[in-house]
Amino acid sequence: MSDRPPPSAPPLDKDELQRRLAHSAFINFLNLTVVSADPEKGEVVMRAAMRPEFERGRGTGQWHGGPIAAIIDTVGDYALVMQLGRPLPTVNFRVDYLRPAVATALRVTATVRRAGRLVGVVDIDVTDDEGRLVAVGRATYATAK
Amino acid sequence: MSDRPPPSAPPLDKDELQRRLAHSAFINFLNLTVVSADPEKGEVVMRAAMRPEFERGRGTGQWHGGPIAAIIDTVGDYALVMQLGRPLPTVNFRVDYLRPAVATALRVTATVRRAGRLVGVVDIDVTDDEGRLVAVGRATYATAK
Amino acid sequence: MSDRPPPSAPPLDKDELQRRLAHSAFINFLNLTVVSADPEKGEVVMRAAMRPEFERGRGTGQWHGGPIAAIIDTVGDYALVMQLGRPLPTVNFRVDYLRPAVATALRVTATVRRAGRLVGVVDIDVTDDEGRLVAVGRATYATAK
Amino acid sequence: MSDRPPPSAPPLDKDELQRRLAHSAFINFLNLTVVSADPEKGEVVMRAAMRPEFERGRGTGQWHGGPIAAIIDTVGDYALVMQLGRPLPTVNFRVDYLRPAVATALRVTATVRRAGRLVGVVDIDVTDDEGRLVAVGRATYATAK
Repeated sequence: MSDRPPPSAPPLDKDELQRRLAHSAFINFLNLTVVSADPEKGEVVMRAAMRPEFERGRGTGQWHGGPIAAIIDTVGDYALVMQLGRPLPTVNFRVDYLRPAVATALRVTATVRRAGRLVGVVDIDVTDDEGRLVAVGRATYATAK
Repeated sequence: MSDRPPPSAPPLDKDELQRRLAHSAFINFLNLTVVSADPEKGEVVMRAAMRPEFERGRGTGQWHGGPIAAIIDTVGDYALVMQLGRPLPTVNFRVDYLRPAVATALRVTATVRRAGRLVGVVDIDVTDDEGRLVAVGRATYATAK
Repeated sequence: MSDRPPPSAPPLDKDELQRRLAHSAFINFLNLTVVSADPEKGEVVMRAAMRPEFERGRGTGQWHGGPIAAIIDTVGDYALVMQLGRPLPTVNFRVDYLRPAVATALRVTATVRRAGRLVGVVDIDVTDDEGRLVAVGRATYATAK
Repeated sequence: MSDRPPPSAPPLDKDELQRRLAHSAFINFLNLTVVSADPEKGEVVMRAAMRPEFERGRGTGQWHGGPIAAIIDTVGDYALVMQLGRPLPTVNFRVDYLRPAVATALRVTATVRRAGRLVGVVDIDVTDDEGRLVAVGRATYATAK
């Protein structure tokens, strides 16, 4: 777990991250927009808009936890992808749900806590339109080449 | 965390669980079939079929981790719902990905480890058509009324 | 998981936290010093000094992960105890080890992310004497009375 | 995360595991006895006896969660060490506390769920003298050489 993993390429910018999101059928379905990408800080911000398939009860406007978990995993991954320039499989992650998210888009901020030779660890905060924290994630990705 | 939470009703059977899955727009989208439901053992088994929206790379037949996480959260929840007869919000959960799942349906087995007065803990195993373990989940749900 | 849990008393200050640490035989053994306690921010900082029993290899000065995990659980708990003024059992927690901690004291910062009616969630960062992050924790405690 | 990590040596037996536990000052302090070691099943069972330093409240006979977490991490690690024959650092782990453990030794069963090329995943169950489940752990260890 020592030190830095070798980057494969220069860090990716916002537009390149947005392009890569479209490569995956599932991620494309998640409907994410890259808001900002800062390789120095290891921070990516994305916005997720509601879709009818993501609702808990039909017509309630409440996000089901399932898509929130999937979004956390994905945005966390792309914080490391931004720095290392290659796909990185998820090893494991944890999600804590803090408040219902209703009639709101989600703002998702992923911050790299450590990019090691073997794995990287990323924290992900999810807030609603009022800036209230609705969920937090912590995820480990494989960085070994 | 002491002892048993009050059940709201008699345990739910397989058909009733299948009916309740349809109440949520997102769970409906997950496309789950209840295979078996054993309230005595605290065990529910469901089957998840692939959909094009769940693929990692388009046309590869490989499951993205996102829907696997959402399925783990949902099937784990229904193991407790079966026993307690009411909706139970997820407090938090962890997913570990063990192997890629390609060109396969998923068999998901959720087992209640503890149904306490405040929270319940459930283990979830996900296997492919060959019986290989592809992911494991551990989830905590709120059981307080 | 809605809203605020009822505090039992006014928030505890640094000296009162230090006194309460001594009530538990195990926590006493952990050898923690309260550095600061800010109920408004929901942040507690403690310092943990090495003991021979905490070493990985004898005489190496390297912290074993076991005491680091126990310290994370404890300091996280006291961030909520500070706000709510009563003992709060741990529901579950996760620890990620990021770097070896060698020949150093540990500085442990716990921050309340959410104090709900049923559970509270706390993030815990552990750094060494150089300010490097050596481990992170995320923990859920029961706040229900 | 594909396939088997290279073992460094033949699997370790019960006596060799017991000997290795003594190498670490902290693990020695944990006071563990190897009950059984089955490399085929990937299962190790250990017994942990109480010590005064492990008590929550002095003289209550109740285990503090801290030593339980440390024991979970350690026994889980040795399930993989048994199979691979070399030290394996912990990447991360989760502990769920299910019931108080009072006036009892702990029986700890660790089962390897997956030993991959990069990481291994182990489940750990902790029961009291009555066979009741008091805590469960799930841990990831680095298996890369």
